[in-house]
Amino acid sequence: MTVVKVAILGFGTVGEGVYRTIQSHAEELESALGKKVEVAAVLIKNKQRERNIHKEVLVTTDFEEILRLPKLDIVIEAIVNREPTFTILQKAIERGCHIITANKEMFAHHGKQLIELAEQNNVSVGFEATVAGGIPVIQTLRQLLKVNRVQQIQGILNGTSNFILTEMRDKKWSFAEALLQAQKNGYAEADPTNDVEGFDAFYKTMILSRIAFGEEPNWQEVEREGITSITSELIGAAEKLGLRFKHLASISKEGSQIKGTVKPVLVGNENPFYHVEGVENAVSLHSDIVGRITLQGPGAGMFPTASAVIEDLVYVSQNDAIKRSFKSTASAAVEQSKVQPKEFWLVTGLAKTYSNPSITWIDEVSKGVFVIKASKKDLEKLVKQQETIFYFSILGEYEPAIASTEEKVSAL
Amino acid sequence: MTVVKVAILGFGTVGEGVYRTIQSHAEELESALGKKVEVAAVLIKNKQRERNIHKEVLVTTDFEEILRLPKLDIVIEAIVNREPTFTILQKAIERGCHIITANKEMFAHHGKQLIELAEQNNVSVGFEATVAGGIPVIQTLRQLLKVNRVQQIQGILNGTSNFILTEMRDKKWSFAEALLQAQKNGYAEADPTNDVEGFDAFYKTMILSRIAFGEEPNWQEVEREGITSITSELIGAAEKLGLRFKHLASISKEGSQIKGTVKPVLVGNENPFYHVEGVENAVSLHSDIVGRITLQGPGAGMFPTASAVIEDLVYVSQNDAIKRSFKSTASAAVEQSKVQPKEFWLVTGLAKTYSNPSITWIDEVSKGVFVIKASKKDLEKLVKQQETIFYFSILGEYEPAIASTEEKVSAL
Repeated sequence: MTVVKVAILGFGTVGEGVYRTIQSHAEELESALGKKVEVAAVLIKNKQRERNIHKEVLVTTDFEEILRLPKLDIVIEAIVNREPTFTILQKAIERGCHIITANKEMFAHHGKQLIELAEQNNVSVGFEATVAGGIPVIQTLRQLLKVNRVQQIQGILNGTSNFILTEMRDKKWSFAEALLQAQKNGYAEADPTNDVEGFDAFYKTMILSRIAFGEEPNWQEVEREGITSITSELIGAAEKLGLRFKHLASISKEGSQIKGTVKPVLVGNENPFYHVEGVENAVSLHSDIVGRITLQGPGAGMFPTASAVIEDLVYVSQNDAIKRSFKSTASAAVEQSKVQPKEFWLVTGLAKTYSNPSITWIDEVSKGVFVIKASKKDLEKLVKQQETIFYFSILGEYEPAIASTEEKVSAL
Repeated sequence: MTVVKVAILGFGTVGEGVYRTIQSHAEELESALGKKVEVAAVLIKNKQRERNIHKEVLVTTDFEEILRLPKLDIVIEAIVNREPTFTILQKAIERGCHIITANKEMFAHHGKQLIELAEQNNVSVGFEATVAGGIPVIQTLRQLLKVNRVQQIQGILNGTSNFILTEMRDKKWSFAEALLQAQKNGYAEADPTNDVEGFDAFYKTMILSRIAFGEEPNWQEVEREGITSITSELIGAAEKLGLRFKHLASISKEGSQIKGTVKPVLVGNENPFYHVEGVENAVSLHSDIVGRITLQGPGAGMFPTASAVIEDLVYVSQNDAIKRSFKSTASAAVEQSKVQPKEFWLVTGLAKTYSNPSITWIDEVSKGVFVIKASKKDLEKLVKQQETIFYFSILGEYEPAIASTEEKVSAL
């Protein structure tokens, strides 16, 4: 029986998950591929650390040693950082290996180059694990794109920041307390910047943009905002209104322009993201024929991510000569109105006495926290003048809290 | 340029949706396939009716005429009923056509035979549209099954019954009133039996079982219960507890035994099905590596279903010689405990004075409507003795309404 020889780069959470799953699901893999999958090598960083790896596997800190193996079919990359990963994967492709990656930062930066190089070398690139862990969002998007024109993708793409927001609301914790818990649980790194400032979600959004629209927006023009400005007071005020903060990534195409944002927004009970709690991820795909499809599930973790990697492994093995490449939609431009509608916002730092015809005051939720109605442009103008203002979009069909307004009126 | 010649059988909601989408998305199809897709024929029932079909298309009531076309690549079936559909599709396969169907009843009965016949004739069978309309649940399941062992699938698979339950709660309507509205909106047939008695969901569940487990349970042993016994009073009582009725289909494998049910259950706010409202469908896939993934979206309707059909069309065209066949998981039996746990139930028709050590009384929600805790077996024993009892499972982590119990206690 032929054997598929695999190298795993990195033996952290994802790398070890892939290794264990290849052992535990050997039978399933063999039945799917008609071939045995064998881990031939593992690339590690620290030779001293004890690892539970079969002694026939080459364990090394030197990738060149792996490249010199007599037979190597697939290289699975589960490291972090852009380099030396990108360089290593280029070498793997040039040697004729399929590559599979779970590294969103590297792939957002170099995905296009890797795929072009893979096409020249007649091998495939799998990257299902770069976005939303175990949720097969890339595969689903490809499936829809066979005929649909995708207009917008929205998602909770970072489990760590969603966990922090959930714990802050649930336990009335401060951001610092919730972050500490996330670190204790192994959800957040010692330096949590990538997660809480939205860089991780940003990279994933760019990868989705490339699949959905065949291109990305100018990275500098993407509005990226973290969750560090959200206090437990704000979360409490939102809760009074039946709203929850969610760190939402969004990418959409209007005409020929692609617009991306990663920022905290407020959603009500009827929004599917309202109920996505803890480390769960969710992605909504809006397309012209099907409408809105939402996928929810574990966005990270050892085994969910390993599953995504191994689904790619099966895919690249089955389609050995077929290159899995970014598919651009025949972008018959979806023309949409450019008029800025008025939306509802939760704002703080705005003087109660402030008066401006373009802003409608709706309610004072708690001391200094207001709901207003305004267009985004008008609100941005205002913030330029008063930098102390924080504002958050209330998504969907917000019903002003009529009852509490009436109470106030009758109490006057 | 080569052309893919297609016949559409039936010109109802789905058939017309497919026809219109092939016209409106000609450019996308051509770019995906490198071939033009051309509707060569449409099979209709009634020649008198006016239809907006291009005059170059053969429109006929006689399938034999379609079979005699000089070139025919794909037959898309969007009729209802098992016959003559099954016979027609067999002829299409024998002529060498790929077939795509949206007909769950026919496919639940004859899917296996059609797929075997297709394999013999080296053509493919697409059936994404048979389950959950526009939600690509079959494709996602296949993707997961590349490596995961699926343990359970749960879903709201019938939009009509979900719409009725939603309207009954929302508008305080009776079942009859909600059904009438469903019929007015075109969601329910004049004879709604298939939807409200769970036959439609049952067929879909059997199709999912075959993909997930490679086989089906004995149809006679599947517990199938409709929603006609649910009154607006019961819905009101459930709402007081923060619970909603959902018509849930479930299929799971324990050891070598497959268990299927289609019945109304109660779910709380933290259950993903709680928020699936109106004609939406949702499916949760539980598998061993990934965990739980939930997909939600439009389960029916002209264009969502058409999209599923056309995704299949692209698939069968691209994999022209590759047979799309049922995949059975190498079913390393998932052994689970057989001990019947005690669950919470909402019951009516049980005398308040009834005493039985195996049943714990939790609360009286409204006159004659109780929450109890009991194992399913004990409850079934009881129902055998007292046939007036109705009971509904409360899914997930139900918290007894402590507050209202306390109120009652303090009021004593």
